[in-house]
Amino acid sequence: MNDTVQTAVLGVTGYAGAELARLLLHHPRLKGTPPIFAGRVDAKDEARGGVPLAEIHPELADSHGSGNIRMQPFSWDLLTNLDVKVLFLATPHEQSREWVPEALARGLRVIDLSGAWRLNESANRAVYGFDDEDSEVAAKTQAIAVYGLPELHRKQIATARLVANPGCYATSIILAVRPLVAAGLVDLSHGIIADSKSGVSGAGKAPTAKTHFMYAADNLSAYSVFSHRHTGELLEQIGVDQSEIIFTPHLLPIPRGILSTIYVRFNGAQTSESISRVYRDFFADSPMVRLYDKTLPQIQYSVRKNYADIGFHLAADGRRAVIVSCLDNLLKGASSQAVQNLNVMLGYSEAEGLE
Amino acid sequence: MNDTVQTAVLGVTGYAGAELARLLLHHPRLKGTPPIFAGRVDAKDEARGGVPLAEIHPELADSHGSGNIRMQPFSWDLLTNLDVKVLFLATPHEQSREWVPEALARGLRVIDLSGAWRLNESANRAVYGFDDEDSEVAAKTQAIAVYGLPELHRKQIATARLVANPGCYATSIILAVRPLVAAGLVDLSHGIIADSKSGVSGAGKAPTAKTHFMYAADNLSAYSVFSHRHTGELLEQIGVDQSEIIFTPHLLPIPRGILSTIYVRFNGAQTSESISRVYRDFFADSPMVRLYDKTLPQIQYSVRKNYADIGFHLAADGRRAVIVSCLDNLLKGASSQAVQNLNVMLGYSEAEGLE
Amino acid sequence: MNDTVQTAVLGVTGYAGAELARLLLHHPRLKGTPPIFAGRVDAKDEARGGVPLAEIHPELADSHGSGNIRMQPFSWDLLTNLDVKVLFLATPHEQSREWVPEALARGLRVIDLSGAWRLNESANRAVYGFDDEDSEVAAKTQAIAVYGLPELHRKQIATARLVANPGCYATSIILAVRPLVAAGLVDLSHGIIADSKSGVSGAGKAPTAKTHFMYAADNLSAYSVFSHRHTGELLEQIGVDQSEIIFTPHLLPIPRGILSTIYVRFNGAQTSESISRVYRDFFADSPMVRLYDKTLPQIQYSVRKNYADIGFHLAADGRRAVIVSCLDNLLKGASSQAVQNLNVMLGYSEAEGLE
Amino acid sequence: MNDTVQTAVLGVTGYAGAELARLLLHHPRLKGTPPIFAGRVDAKDEARGGVPLAEIHPELADSHGSGNIRMQPFSWDLLTNLDVKVLFLATPHEQSREWVPEALARGLRVIDLSGAWRLNESANRAVYGFDDEDSEVAAKTQAIAVYGLPELHRKQIATARLVANPGCYATSIILAVRPLVAAGLVDLSHGIIADSKSGVSGAGKAPTAKTHFMYAADNLSAYSVFSHRHTGELLEQIGVDQSEIIFTPHLLPIPRGILSTIYVRFNGAQTSESISRVYRDFFADSPMVRLYDKTLPQIQYSVRKNYADIGFHLAADGRRAVIVSCLDNLLKGASSQAVQNLNVMLGYSEAEGLE
Repeated sequence: MNDTVQTAVLGVTGYAGAELARLLLHHPRLKGTPPIFAGRVDAKDEARGGVPLAEIHPELADSHGSGNIRMQPFSWDLLTNLDVKVLFLATPHEQSREWVPEALARGLRVIDLSGAWRLNESANRAVYGFDDEDSEVAAKTQAIAVYGLPELHRKQIATARLVANPGCYATSIILAVRPLVAAGLVDLSHGIIADSKSGVSGAGKAPTAKTHFMYAADNLSAYSVFSHRHTGELLEQIGVDQSEIIFTPHLLPIPRGILSTIYVRFNGAQTSESISRVYRDFFADSPMVRLYDKTLPQIQYSVRKNYADIGFHLAADGRRAVIVSCLDNLLKGASSQAVQNLNVMLGYSEAEGLE
Repeated sequence: MNDTVQTAVLGVTGYAGAELARLLLHHPRLKGTPPIFAGRVDAKDEARGGVPLAEIHPELADSHGSGNIRMQPFSWDLLTNLDVKVLFLATPHEQSREWVPEALARGLRVIDLSGAWRLNESANRAVYGFDDEDSEVAAKTQAIAVYGLPELHRKQIATARLVANPGCYATSIILAVRPLVAAGLVDLSHGIIADSKSGVSGAGKAPTAKTHFMYAADNLSAYSVFSHRHTGELLEQIGVDQSEIIFTPHLLPIPRGILSTIYVRFNGAQTSESISRVYRDFFADSPMVRLYDKTLPQIQYSVRKNYADIGFHLAADGRRAVIVSCLDNLLKGASSQAVQNLNVMLGYSEAEGLE
Repeated sequence: MNDTVQTAVLGVTGYAGAELARLLLHHPRLKGTPPIFAGRVDAKDEARGGVPLAEIHPELADSHGSGNIRMQPFSWDLLTNLDVKVLFLATPHEQSREWVPEALARGLRVIDLSGAWRLNESANRAVYGFDDEDSEVAAKTQAIAVYGLPELHRKQIATARLVANPGCYATSIILAVRPLVAAGLVDLSHGIIADSKSGVSGAGKAPTAKTHFMYAADNLSAYSVFSHRHTGELLEQIGVDQSEIIFTPHLLPIPRGILSTIYVRFNGAQTSESISRVYRDFFADSPMVRLYDKTLPQIQYSVRKNYADIGFHLAADGRRAVIVSCLDNLLKGASSQAVQNLNVMLGYSEAEGLE
Repeated sequence: MNDTVQTAVLGVTGYAGAELARLLLHHPRLKGTPPIFAGRVDAKDEARGGVPLAEIHPELADSHGSGNIRMQPFSWDLLTNLDVKVLFLATPHEQSREWVPEALARGLRVIDLSGAWRLNESANRAVYGFDDEDSEVAAKTQAIAVYGLPELHRKQIATARLVANPGCYATSIILAVRPLVAAGLVDLSHGIIADSKSGVSGAGKAPTAKTHFMYAADNLSAYSVFSHRHTGELLEQIGVDQSEIIFTPHLLPIPRGILSTIYVRFNGAQTSESISRVYRDFFADSPMVRLYDKTLPQIQYSVRKNYADIGFHLAADGRRAVIVSCLDNLLKGASSQAVQNLNVMLGYSEAEGLE
């Protein structure tokens, strides 16, 4: 296939980076031109240039294959020389904030997995504390960024130069709630509650007091109550304000997976069938969403899968629903969503390399 | 201490039974007259008469002591001959429903750990499907049953002949919500949401598809949505109706512990201090409740402890709160609560043997 | 590809059956003629005819695909009518013992995942307690059975009518030890020690006291000391007698994966390089074995992979080695090994569909 | 009890320190004079002077009690002023190496939980890389250090000024093997194999790549093969040389507990009874060792207990045994062993405060 597009991944040392590498290496449309992998741009990772991917991510090793792929020390010239068209950034927020404008200036299309460009409202961005908030470049970059949730913004993503890949929690909640809100069913005055639980990989690869096995194992803890950074994504993408939603994340003692239990109240009585129809219509052309009919999603059915799984139960009064939304935080919550965005950007089938 | 009261435990083979045995054996006021232990009354457990407790619960073994205590085949004569005053039942609902009237008729005071006698309203009891609902004996027994949550019903428990020990989920939610509702702060028209997560011991000792390691490990699942049996306890003890509360239990991949994340809306704006004061006042004389000031409870701080732990965060608008309530489902959610009830019934210090 | 061979799987409801279904459905050489799936042949599973695979194994569901594949009620006529050439049995030992002769009589080639036909010596089979030990049919069937470890018996497997797929523990130990014994390096008078640890899926899908989450979680236990059924495979395939090896299995609190720590003493002093060379030579044409050079295998690198992973450390005296051997008990320890055997039997590349 | 001895703990911030604090606070003979707690002597911990213990170890909090105990900034004067008689050090090896001589010079008796003074042979100490190996003070200190395994050295501990509390792995192995070696039963020419598995708390509280939940969970890994620091303790206390024992530690995905599977060969055929008798005689006066008759110890029976648990199975030939030895690495492997040593040093009952 001589029309394969050259891609590159910057920041391949984390959990999402590893999954992204795996997906891209097996992507049927990219086999002719495997992606370039580069470490994060700091002294330590630069020194890792030449290091086999499998040394950092032993689970990527196979007997004769991808284990031999090596990380390359990053430089803009490298990307130019190799004619890279699409750059994935799996870098910290601050670094993405700094590098994306440069990448765009060099003509690259960018899929950024960080939170750097997801939020349109500066009030919502405040939680990140970016120090470029007043710069013209930042403003222009933000203006062209598209929120990379294909189920909501497929058309804009197709032509986007910068796709801001959504947060993992945000993906699980927005996909479950937006269809109902868009259909005008939800009584927002009563407030939406999203009680979310995530595996430890969501906390990143850095060893900290909270990622220590002794802290996370046999435990459950709520954190960032009323203050989690993904809240802004919920506000902007669901279309509600602070008084209309509460989002509470919890740390689960499992490696991966998110389950969000979401509580909504309807303006009028609904039936299970009427709610199902809203979801089915909304996701009619969305191959990466699985709707559950009689049962509810569970984390075990969603991990290591590229789907968002959604199910619900309706109260006897037809006025209240409990929605359960599950996904793998490293896949539909990060890397497979990035590949889905790539597919949309390049005109491939949306599920290419994801089923 | 020659005034020690003779107690007995019927149904000591389950998880809660094991914890109850441990607590009673170490209870300072009961050392003079250690409790009698008997199996559940079926052929299999009867045959276990004479079996050392430590054979069923190896974790109860010590080098020279309690491991030698043996289970006894149950008979009413046994209890009479040994002059038992208080009988604990850690038996299935159906069995408690059948045996409690008999025990009361024989003059015993009873602490029943099952759900058999917790619910005053027959509508709420329907979920248990008792087949004695029309009997006079059942009605009279129910009429004298006291809901065994000392923080709410200390006075009635002190003189009760029958104490219905609360459900584990119910304890975690009622203690967190009742003080605020009692103070008239909660806007019930907006509904209370209780999103609860429990370790696997809550599902009992019987091996089932859901207690299989392969089902529970690395997983999280919601279950009994809008239909869990503890809901009736919430309605009766908090003082709300079905339309005013939603309770969703989840199965956590940990052995023990419950964390309930509870969402309430207030009638008017509150401050953290005003909410704290309500809790402090309500629990001023309650040694088994720990209030958290700056941090939130976590399951790791509550397991293997006899306390209910409660903390909260208030939204910036002062109108909404997220309350986190933790306890050990086998202790404050079952056996240590039963001992706390015993202490109240016998006039001991409420925390005797529990700190 | 019009030369695709029709296969069928009998007994697809267990863990290994699910993995086998997944592998076969994605096998590039079988795509033209997807396999037939049937439940175990008992009343309960027969009733499951028509049940979608995804209902029994929700993790097999995808949005538009394999989830729709249905189990079929088993009959020999079904296999004949569909022109099945190779039959996989993922059934209990007793059932495989009964059904394999019938399948062979009907001209099918069989890959049996149970322990029914693995052992040549009747003394070693005693542990299974088969009641057909004196029958002529059983004797003839056993005589043509080939032990399905391709790394040892590739040639015989290629033409075998009956392949007895090895035990999971046995695979992890034999692959690590046989090369050294075959090279004459091991001082058998000192005895080989194989200390193995397995995840809970190895204990099967039936809920039992030992597969209960409360038993397995936060625990480690040795079991079947000096008496595990896989011991006979070790004796026959490594070529040692009872006095020359000890095998101790342990139950790990993880879903899947086996790690065997193996202790051998050499006849003379060795170097790391000399040992490495023995392994490299032995596995030169074995794509499903990965040899570790500087590091040791860990379970996390082997799970959800189709490889056996082997590494070792040599004592300073060159006379003793600790060998670490890892694999996924459901894959190289069961289903992917079965597919590897299929590949060998049909003349495909040995790693087809496994990388 | 006005003869209570004043104790102090230096280095109370780690896992073993927390357990030690808990045990000492509940020790019946120390209630009159609760111990002094001090942080490790570095800037960070010094700053923690005044911090409530419960802030560092929330699991130590209770509603009205020990949670209020505060850490004190350490100084020698503090110990003198408070008339401390026995000092526990739960500090890093290097710090214990430096501070113990000073403590002894000030007349304190010391129980050191680190590895600093456990090893008599300088060759065995080499692995610690102490830079005081040539100093006279170090030599004199080492000369009076007693290895703090009461089951072996009760008499010397009783009068010791410095007790070197054993390593957790070492305790589990020495107690299982020394009785058999002391009885002359073990054929050392065949070598002893100790395959040990430990929970993550054994790796300490510092967040590292290996204590990260994502590394440890769902995993098992061997480490420090042929090179673990506890090996020297095995050599000195069992009485064997390097060629006669192999010790392989593994990291288990559980919070706490050690299980050692130990393989020995006997000089002549034994019976289960003859082996049991050796153990019973050896541990006749050892309340903290539990011998298992028919079953084997498991980690779940030993965690949160102060015992070492030992069981075994004999091969049919009577010549080989598999011994299983379990303990809680933070208790009998560290803090409860330290309390047991204290009891011996002060002439209390050896199990005081430990049952």
